[in-house]
Amino acid sequence: MFRPEIKVFDCTIRDGGLANDSHFSLETVRAVYEACCRAGIDYVELGYRNSKEMFSPDEFGLWRFCDEDDLKRAIDGIDPGQTKMCLMQDAHKAVPEDVLPCEESVVDMIRVATYVKDIDKAIRLANNATDKGYEATINIMSISHEGAPFLDEALQQIEEETKVLAVYVVDSFGALYSEEVQFLVAKYQQYLKTKEVGGHFHNNQQLAFANTIEAIIRNANFLDGTLYGLGRAAGNCPTELLMGFLKNPKFNIEPILDVIARAILPLRQSIDWGYHIPYMLTGVLDQHPRAAMAWMKGDKRQDFVEFYRKLIEDPEV
Amino acid sequence: MFRPEIKVFDCTIRDGGLANDSHFSLETVRAVYEACCRAGIDYVELGYRNSKEMFSPDEFGLWRFCDEDDLKRAIDGIDPGQTKMCLMQDAHKAVPEDVLPCEESVVDMIRVATYVKDIDKAIRLANNATDKGYEATINIMSISHEGAPFLDEALQQIEEETKVLAVYVVDSFGALYSEEVQFLVAKYQQYLKTKEVGGHFHNNQQLAFANTIEAIIRNANFLDGTLYGLGRAAGNCPTELLMGFLKNPKFNIEPILDVIARAILPLRQSIDWGYHIPYMLTGVLDQHPRAAMAWMKGDKRQDFVEFYRKLIEDPEV
Repeated sequence: MFRPEIKVFDCTIRDGGLANDSHFSLETVRAVYEACCRAGIDYVELGYRNSKEMFSPDEFGLWRFCDEDDLKRAIDGIDPGQTKMCLMQDAHKAVPEDVLPCEESVVDMIRVATYVKDIDKAIRLANNATDKGYEATINIMSISHEGAPFLDEALQQIEEETKVLAVYVVDSFGALYSEEVQFLVAKYQQYLKTKEVGGHFHNNQQLAFANTIEAIIRNANFLDGTLYGLGRAAGNCPTELLMGFLKNPKFNIEPILDVIARAILPLRQSIDWGYHIPYMLTGVLDQHPRAAMAWMKGDKRQDFVEFYRKLIEDPEV
Repeated sequence: MFRPEIKVFDCTIRDGGLANDSHFSLETVRAVYEACCRAGIDYVELGYRNSKEMFSPDEFGLWRFCDEDDLKRAIDGIDPGQTKMCLMQDAHKAVPEDVLPCEESVVDMIRVATYVKDIDKAIRLANNATDKGYEATINIMSISHEGAPFLDEALQQIEEETKVLAVYVVDSFGALYSEEVQFLVAKYQQYLKTKEVGGHFHNNQQLAFANTIEAIIRNANFLDGTLYGLGRAAGNCPTELLMGFLKNPKFNIEPILDVIARAILPLRQSIDWGYHIPYMLTGVLDQHPRAAMAWMKGDKRQDFVEFYRKLIEDPEV
């Protein structure tokens, strides 16, 4: 029943870091890492390796930079089993020099997040990673705003110019419906003859898990989730739902259930992720969630009609 | 772009009544009804017409019985526009005598909820309704536990013996994945040559809206939602998401957004519907949510691993 090529990525700490400027306690990071290793998750993403010149360490937490010493503290004494560690670099906010040779690092994979317009920066970072001995992927963000011909050219370039293992469909706005996931996965497959397709979906319309299933049905094999869907705004595909769907006997959901109760639910006191009407509306309208995030912090938080009219009259994007 | 055959049912008060024993205030029911009428929702379901001999009026609220006088108070002075009113009868908990001739009633449609084993009771109630001048549907509950040959026979019987407009796939346990929705809708269509297929999905695995879309893609035309997903346990497909997806220009989402803020979100103080790990687990395991509902009321509410082991060792169903 199961497809052994499928790789599950838990990016709770990395993607969740967009909701709290990567200010997770060491204790939380260790708990998430250990649970994912015990559960048989294929990759755990502990944060970004972004540039300290573009993000101030005074403002952002450790996991926006993931210095090797901090990563070692996060995993010290924990048996990784078969679980690998990955980090993300933003194509336009990270530099190759911040990446050590792989044999001097505890990191196994670098994932490069990019817009189509930055594809050459992304390829440079991805090749930097593979040249230094890492696995790599390229994750194309805001995919609902990217179209032919530039997306097609970018896919062709990635196929020809890189050794990445996979290229991701990233639905940053939680805007995609299943038919669009089908269309995009098929388009990726048309160009990426030697690489896997990945899927990373946001939950503005409660479709993150469903779109992940749709991607699986269409033979995407690299799949992202976060614990209890933790992430910016509406959050992500919940890792526990993905584990419930997948049938690979190596997976064990119990450590995931346990760490959600111990380490993730308490974060709700400071991070209000999940389904909310403002996030739903930016998803339906295929807009960046930033206007919704600002609205949620204001005193008219529940004036949904006014927010809806604002979005329609003065779109953010 | 839109399919005019599609009919949207808002069953907030009816299905939500399973979460609060149908104890909605008249003010809430009026607000929901008015918003749905202004939004262009095709049918509003205000409750059950179940038997007072099987449900005690001391224990259950008005909307478990929907006496005509109470319905009149709920809609008095509100312009229905093109919106019709429906009620539900449970095949095994309702009697034909409680249904007046249609011309003496404010109700337009009776939906009969049934298990396959009670299909003859359901057909009796459905025929009682159509004989008295109502539109009718039959809604087959717990569909994830119903299989050939009895389901197939029931569908054939409904096709031959009734004048119902539609027969519903009802995923009571929130257990279905998209491929199962495809399979079931196709099976229904195979038998129901003269009737529409409907879909009612629960949200235990965050798939209620996605499964509704899947049903639409497969040409199901009768679709249920509730405001903000209000319903028993994990709740339902949110009506506002369905409206965001559908393109019929007659729909207006603004009254829906407004009533969610005014009348639905305040109910969260007394009803804790939505995504919770115990509900997710019964969904993944294709079990009735009652064990999860009991667990959520206990003092070990967040001991998810213990609950999971209990479900596996001693299934509810």
